[in-house]
Amino acid sequence: MTTQELVDQIHKKQSFLCIGLDTDLEKIPAFLLEDEDPIFSFNKAIIDATHDLCVAYKPNIAFYEAYGVQGWSALRKTIKYLNTNYPDIFTIADAKRGDIGNTSTRYAKAFFEDLNFDSITIAPYMGRDSVEPFLAFKDKHTILLALTSNEGAFDFQTKKIDGVELYKEVLSVSTTYKGAENLMYVVGATKAEYLKEIRKIVPNSFLLVPGVGAQGGSLKDVCEYGMTKDIGLLINSSRGIIYASDQENFADAAKSKAKELQEAMKIELERLN
Amino acid sequence: MTTQELVDQIHKKQSFLCIGLDTDLEKIPAFLLEDEDPIFSFNKAIIDATHDLCVAYKPNIAFYEAYGVQGWSALRKTIKYLNTNYPDIFTIADAKRGDIGNTSTRYAKAFFEDLNFDSITIAPYMGRDSVEPFLAFKDKHTILLALTSNEGAFDFQTKKIDGVELYKEVLSVSTTYKGAENLMYVVGATKAEYLKEIRKIVPNSFLLVPGVGAQGGSLKDVCEYGMTKDIGLLINSSRGIIYASDQENFADAAKSKAKELQEAMKIELERLN
Repeated sequence: MTTQELVDQIHKKQSFLCIGLDTDLEKIPAFLLEDEDPIFSFNKAIIDATHDLCVAYKPNIAFYEAYGVQGWSALRKTIKYLNTNYPDIFTIADAKRGDIGNTSTRYAKAFFEDLNFDSITIAPYMGRDSVEPFLAFKDKHTILLALTSNEGAFDFQTKKIDGVELYKEVLSVSTTYKGAENLMYVVGATKAEYLKEIRKIVPNSFLLVPGVGAQGGSLKDVCEYGMTKDIGLLINSSRGIIYASDQENFADAAKSKAKELQEAMKIELERLN
Repeated sequence: MTTQELVDQIHKKQSFLCIGLDTDLEKIPAFLLEDEDPIFSFNKAIIDATHDLCVAYKPNIAFYEAYGVQGWSALRKTIKYLNTNYPDIFTIADAKRGDIGNTSTRYAKAFFEDLNFDSITIAPYMGRDSVEPFLAFKDKHTILLALTSNEGAFDFQTKKIDGVELYKEVLSVSTTYKGAENLMYVVGATKAEYLKEIRKIVPNSFLLVPGVGAQGGSLKDVCEYGMTKDIGLLINSSRGIIYASDQENFADAAKSKAKELQEAMKIELERLN
């Protein structure tokens, strides 16, 4: 998917919501456990209920890998279901991978070609030759971890290299990578005030922003500091939406929560005009 | 496996060799492709031929993930084969994972419990709460990326934070993590002279060292600067061993290459006495 197609979808749906499919057998409604593939059953129900309110889905790969072959198979069914039934949706493999050249190409093929995701999250620690293999794929997007929303972000990401925080160094160095036009960045919403600084380095890039709501970030602040003329934001919510209820009505409950966020986003988009 | 059991194995075999199982269908002998599970057939033959010359095997997970469900199944068969037939071998899931708390626990369960690996490689960028969930597992080891052997290592790892290179900051900060006694570190052998500095920060930790041979590092230098009284080194070789031949005799050829390295290691171990 091209960036323009993502932008068009945002305008059409008046939403820049990404829903995290962190599907956990211990949290989904118990009655689904009798299904042949409870993970896929849950995902399908959530997707069918929310697809017109969001522009992206983001399965966190850890949740699938934890269930081995069964999880991997459920992931494959989920992405195929999305690509077949809702081809306009932007899909994100939240894998946080990062390895040396040749091996990165393996991961890129697995997620971009075999599974046909539109994008993947990548850790920056190993530098240029661990990121560029992902950037070589046309109309695929690499979402680099810059400033994450967890406590541990302060261990290294905010430490200063010659007066510049590491996460800013990651942003600026990465803009020199070959294929940098395919880069997006993960920026935690718990640090909305940092977005102003971030926009000085990457004025137009899309930012994937976790942590609005549950982790304390404010949608209004994120939009004020982070939104571009082409929106440039994907706001992720996972548990707040998909686990809104563990009863029979779980999909409707998820839809209501997604609708709340979409309506708040619509207001922010109108502010832009 | 306890660290002491690993040390005992090193003394017994007079080897601190780790063999990387980066199994690639495009590189294994063509006649194996007719097997029902060529990846496992290849791994089994390599393991049977080399298990008394090495102390560890390290499948790079990217190679398995690239083949989807089929790859995942081959990985499971490989680790089960190792644990059943050669339980004294130290196993490393080269996954380079790293995610937030709860999600890290998922990955830890997948690799430590479900697959029963002894250790896993982890990226440090997300800090404390992305690493500690792995450290909570008894007799399991977390191998943190410190200084990698690729070009991109110079993008961030060697940059200075208040005069101290990032990789050294990773080493020293990580020693304060809860469960730090379960930490080991990846340190590329292409930078053997750095090992002296590294040993000032982590004097006793095991280091997993890629890049001896193919990537230009010298075994002698690595031992001179990095070896501890309990060895403290695992030297990895992947392609140089497993792809020594693509003919019928591939397992014997791998054995010869492993034997060369083991004999060189024996000399280094004798130097220690």
